[in-house]
Amino acid sequence: MSLLLKRMSVRQFKAKPVADEAITAMLQSAMQAPSARNQQPWEFVVIKRREILDQLSETKGGAKPLKTAPLGILLLMREEVGVPYMRPQDMAAATQNILLEATNLGLGSVWIGVYPREETIEKVKAIITIPKHLIPFSIVAIGHPDHATKVEGLRYDENRVRVIE
Amino acid sequence: MSLLLKRMSVRQFKAKPVADEAITAMLQSAMQAPSARNQQPWEFVVIKRREILDQLSETKGGAKPLKTAPLGILLLMREEVGVPYMRPQDMAAATQNILLEATNLGLGSVWIGVYPREETIEKVKAIITIPKHLIPFSIVAIGHPDHATKVEGLRYDENRVRVIE
Repeated sequence: MSLLLKRMSVRQFKAKPVADEAITAMLQSAMQAPSARNQQPWEFVVIKRREILDQLSETKGGAKPLKTAPLGILLLMREEVGVPYMRPQDMAAATQNILLEATNLGLGSVWIGVYPREETIEKVKAIITIPKHLIPFSIVAIGHPDHATKVEGLRYDENRVRVIE
Repeated sequence: MSLLLKRMSVRQFKAKPVADEAITAMLQSAMQAPSARNQQPWEFVVIKRREILDQLSETKGGAKPLKTAPLGILLLMREEVGVPYMRPQDMAAATQNILLEATNLGLGSVWIGVYPREETIEKVKAIITIPKHLIPFSIVAIGHPDHATKVEGLRYDENRVRVIE
């Protein structure tokens, strides 16, 4: 089955750390995402410190998986790039690549949205010092799944497809 | 090598059509993308008609690859969903999944951004009739690559990574 169909959200993790090689592979995949005019508006914070992950887990309801995740990758969006209105799409593609590379490596992960919600952005910035030209965009919680994961059913819905032949 | 590292933009295609099985696989992967609260804000228009692809190729500079592509998939974003400000990120993840499934199938593809540029949105709507509650978001040009494609080098840049241990 295609890797794209295997990805699912995992929200509960074992304490076992994620290997550094796996972290590098996920960052390589993130930076290989396409971006408007190849502007690559991304930077990354790899978070392994339990205390910081715990604090981040309380920034919004959906951030709870960081409570058990041994790893969080925070994606930061640059202010000064060529096609600013396309940045969120570039950042989303990079985030999706991290989720997919995690799946490829047998890890579980879940996408925690930060941008554009001002409240969550400010909470993240209160925990991690972030340079002024960068905006917290998303956090991916990553780890070894706590339970055996069952692949989700296909969401494919042919009613959402129109064909012009 | 990971699928995520193999994807690259292909902008010139052979006339050979894309098999229907491949189109279904790409749509399945698109609809398997994660979305905020699983809101799945997407719909799709599969475009095979040469005349329409030619017209779409003139909507912006970056749309030129549709001139030779035998297939375009137009992604449409729904208005009425649960977490509206997260829709563009959901749509970007679905777009990225189409590019990756194309790569997985040995096809070439390129992401043509439409949203949020009002000018391009209006041009697309002048070519294809789109229900009022849907907004053109992106078009993926897809086909068999015209030239042998050489995998791009890694864009990985360790200066963009900070680690909190």
